[in-house]
Amino acid sequence: MAKDFETGGEIGKDYQDPPPSPLFDPEELTKWSFYRALIAEFIATLLFLYITVLTVIGYKKQVDPALNVDACGGVGILGIAWAFGGMIFILVYCTAGISGGHINPAVTFGLFLARKLSFVRAVFYMIAQCLGAICGVGLVKAFQSAYYDRYGGGANELSNGYSKGTGLGAEIIGTFVLVYTVFSATDPKRSARDSHVPVLAPLPIGFAVFMVHLATIPVTGTGINPARSFGAAVIYNNKKAWDDHWMFWVGPFIGAAIAAIYHQYVFRAGFVKALGSFRSSSNV
Amino acid sequence: MAKDFETGGEIGKDYQDPPPSPLFDPEELTKWSFYRALIAEFIATLLFLYITVLTVIGYKKQVDPALNVDACGGVGILGIAWAFGGMIFILVYCTAGISGGHINPAVTFGLFLARKLSFVRAVFYMIAQCLGAICGVGLVKAFQSAYYDRYGGGANELSNGYSKGTGLGAEIIGTFVLVYTVFSATDPKRSARDSHVPVLAPLPIGFAVFMVHLATIPVTGTGINPARSFGAAVIYNNKKAWDDHWMFWVGPFIGAAIAAIYHQYVFRAGFVKALGSFRSSSNV
Amino acid sequence: MAKDFETGGEIGKDYQDPPPSPLFDPEELTKWSFYRALIAEFIATLLFLYITVLTVIGYKKQVDPALNVDACGGVGILGIAWAFGGMIFILVYCTAGISGGHINPAVTFGLFLARKLSFVRAVFYMIAQCLGAICGVGLVKAFQSAYYDRYGGGANELSNGYSKGTGLGAEIIGTFVLVYTVFSATDPKRSARDSHVPVLAPLPIGFAVFMVHLATIPVTGTGINPARSFGAAVIYNNKKAWDDHWMFWVGPFIGAAIAAIYHQYVFRAGFVKALGSFRSSSNV
Amino acid sequence: MAKDFETGGEIGKDYQDPPPSPLFDPEELTKWSFYRALIAEFIATLLFLYITVLTVIGYKKQVDPALNVDACGGVGILGIAWAFGGMIFILVYCTAGISGGHINPAVTFGLFLARKLSFVRAVFYMIAQCLGAICGVGLVKAFQSAYYDRYGGGANELSNGYSKGTGLGAEIIGTFVLVYTVFSATDPKRSARDSHVPVLAPLPIGFAVFMVHLATIPVTGTGINPARSFGAAVIYNNKKAWDDHWMFWVGPFIGAAIAAIYHQYVFRAGFVKALGSFRSSSNV
Repeated sequence: MAKDFETGGEIGKDYQDPPPSPLFDPEELTKWSFYRALIAEFIATLLFLYITVLTVIGYKKQVDPALNVDACGGVGILGIAWAFGGMIFILVYCTAGISGGHINPAVTFGLFLARKLSFVRAVFYMIAQCLGAICGVGLVKAFQSAYYDRYGGGANELSNGYSKGTGLGAEIIGTFVLVYTVFSATDPKRSARDSHVPVLAPLPIGFAVFMVHLATIPVTGTGINPARSFGAAVIYNNKKAWDDHWMFWVGPFIGAAIAAIYHQYVFRAGFVKALGSFRSSSNV
Repeated sequence: MAKDFETGGEIGKDYQDPPPSPLFDPEELTKWSFYRALIAEFIATLLFLYITVLTVIGYKKQVDPALNVDACGGVGILGIAWAFGGMIFILVYCTAGISGGHINPAVTFGLFLARKLSFVRAVFYMIAQCLGAICGVGLVKAFQSAYYDRYGGGANELSNGYSKGTGLGAEIIGTFVLVYTVFSATDPKRSARDSHVPVLAPLPIGFAVFMVHLATIPVTGTGINPARSFGAAVIYNNKKAWDDHWMFWVGPFIGAAIAAIYHQYVFRAGFVKALGSFRSSSNV
Repeated sequence: MAKDFETGGEIGKDYQDPPPSPLFDPEELTKWSFYRALIAEFIATLLFLYITVLTVIGYKKQVDPALNVDACGGVGILGIAWAFGGMIFILVYCTAGISGGHINPAVTFGLFLARKLSFVRAVFYMIAQCLGAICGVGLVKAFQSAYYDRYGGGANELSNGYSKGTGLGAEIIGTFVLVYTVFSATDPKRSARDSHVPVLAPLPIGFAVFMVHLATIPVTGTGINPARSFGAAVIYNNKKAWDDHWMFWVGPFIGAAIAAIYHQYVFRAGFVKALGSFRSSSNV
Repeated sequence: MAKDFETGGEIGKDYQDPPPSPLFDPEELTKWSFYRALIAEFIATLLFLYITVLTVIGYKKQVDPALNVDACGGVGILGIAWAFGGMIFILVYCTAGISGGHINPAVTFGLFLARKLSFVRAVFYMIAQCLGAICGVGLVKAFQSAYYDRYGGGANELSNGYSKGTGLGAEIIGTFVLVYTVFSATDPKRSARDSHVPVLAPLPIGFAVFMVHLATIPVTGTGINPARSFGAAVIYNNKKAWDDHWMFWVGPFIGAAIAAIYHQYVFRAGFVKALGSFRSSSNV
């Protein structure tokens, strides 16, 4: 709060940006740490989907009037939002040092655009995340066979009364909030200046997921994570879920791209730098 | 807890107060960091209003008896309070290093009174915040066209059964809680002594917003942020909301001013210092 | 987790215990920092009671069947528990460096027993806390005049179906949980070893209050803070509240004393030290 | 997020793994710190069960239609999940430096498999935890004599409609989430690299418990802590609870073992090291 910035950050830097990742880095495929990161992303996404979809199915059972249970005692939409946000908090905390803690193809895509990881790594991460999500939802179906299909399978679908544009917009802005928080939390410049940035990091990332779920569960069920939507769609395998499915890839990827541009060009003065180099060359 | 203070902080200081900001600082207008801060405040307030008002409209739809939905499964007032508090936590975390993370004209006003930022910067911040709030609520109206007006547009209004004085008082004390927490979190003296102060900072600020919403949603819907009230009033554009609107500027500004005075004169011993300099001059 | 302790902490200490506070320290009465601490305790307890009792009254209004409002949309007992715990988190965060952040006569009493503050300071703190609590509840009554008395005034009373012994026991154990957490959070030995201890400190203290409220609101309404119970009893001024009132002073003070003994004699090896010095003297 | 690992961590280590604990360490039995740790585990597990089971009984009373109370105003399953997770957060925070903060035989078992504590210490910890759990639930029964048996005694039982395999699976995966988080939070390699790891540690551990309860309360009531299940079973002493009881020891122990293997062999490259030493010896 209320910090004064004397410079745009160009002179006397007290931090160091890592060099941009190469698009293809054949050497990383030879390292155990690469495969370990894939395993970590796979397991983390599996646990994420297992806990959250199990919570969703349990919630739907609690509020089912046909079962005549006490609806009011259930976890509510607030509990579902906590499940998504809280799991991201835990899993980012646990895997940040191993794989970077993405657990979400949109996060991987945004960080790839900012050249924080190679193209090869990004593709393998997304595959590991999607496989993990399928296995996680599959476990829920195995455990809740009596209820899984009846209660919508935890799949993301556009709710009644909303247009496709609204659903897409909700996914774009929701993913923007998440990926923008991720960029803020992992910025080496900010980590060097504000002690709260690296220490708290996993908590605001989890809270971003929590917040977006509070706001958009009534609209789309909240995707903002294509692996989450894909895993549920594969296991639920319902026409409506597949018809709406494009929205949960296109929206998050657009939102992540806007967040990457916003962070790199507005906050990190990339725009000014680009303009400056243009000017100095045109001055010649 | 249980610290002993040998001095009033005058001798052997282990921290440094920044000099007071000038009222007008023409140089800051020439820097990219100034405009970047405005953009950050604009986007942060936009996201704040978008997520929170979307949550409010979703909540009102959940509890609408006419829709015959399951009221108990909704997010509840507790979920709304979380949305406001949690978003402030995230956004202060993300923008503290860029703009100071105000996201609220009352916070800007309080920090201006304490000479933490210049008059010019304070005015531009408030404009950016109000524009961001209008855009954020506008997005909700665009996405929820069928429900936005029916469910009160997320606007702040005095509830039935409360006097204008009560509403104003609730806004004053609520904003005092928030701005007092902001001052505590950004005090360089305290940061030097207690390691939890700088590290946790965004979390208690978010919690202050959460707490005040729990207490005063039944009274005024909880403003404590003139940009939030203004953005919703502009988009909702309802007579009752405009009639009560003065309360959501006057209350927060008075509360912020009291917090600034309380912090500067009581906690930072400004009173004693002022008294001391008076005495020493009258002794001559 | 899983730390090995080679010694009982006697050899090669990497921390320093402050000397025990004197019972009477006439010099501290001459310092501004002493009066500043009293003001901080007064204001903090005022804000604590204002926010929490306002939340309680709002909750009771939401669930009143006579008002025919939507009970399910309210904050619930969960929201009340958050209000108490969250406010303690914020206020300990804000006042820890000024007054130690007690906001509770039981905490002051426990820390006094451990000789962390002088007798004079302890007495003045308790007076400031009780005055602050009365003012805070008084504000709620002024703001909620139509509802305050009807909804029980936020006073602590033993619920139907529980014996006095149960109420007293619930207060003792609840206060033990809180004061034990306070001791753990402010232990200089632990702060030197575990980086999470000083940094997170206000958060587990707030959570301790949150947890105890979840468990004992159905039994006594949860006191564990004599100032809180006293302020509500004075303003509500109801026979039943005054009849049960002794329980909310005796219980918390016993609980705090047990926590002080537990921490000083079991965890800080005071028992072993005392035994050791006895042995070595008897060996002579 | 997005860290690059040049090595598998073998060269130029900036951290130090403690040596594996011996199976039997007769010397530790002679130290006060060993008995202090047992007392800490006993008291922590007692407080954990007291607060959480009291919350469960209070919740069941709130939603009892026969009592005609307002079900909606209760704490809900969300409040119960908070009670379990929040207490673990507090108690790990308070006892981490004394006993390691296990409060759970499954955690003790997992850390024993990773050779973080001796066999003797592990056995004594489990005994202390089980005794503490019995006393904690016993206190609840004493305080809630009128309601304890009527509302299920807080015991873990398989819910109707789920097979034994599902219950066992839910316990295995739930405990895996918890013990995996514990390993991540206490890894000396990670603590040296990421500043959030040691500072936040108790918070994600508490959240792991919170999350698992949200997901599996509808299935088994959520054990993931054999002492918690054992204490409730002993005091409730009901045939159904005892019949299902094996599941709450076998499941957590299997889950903890998988987490220990996962962390030691996948993340800490134990597998690669083992493979490497095999290769180098076979090359000779």
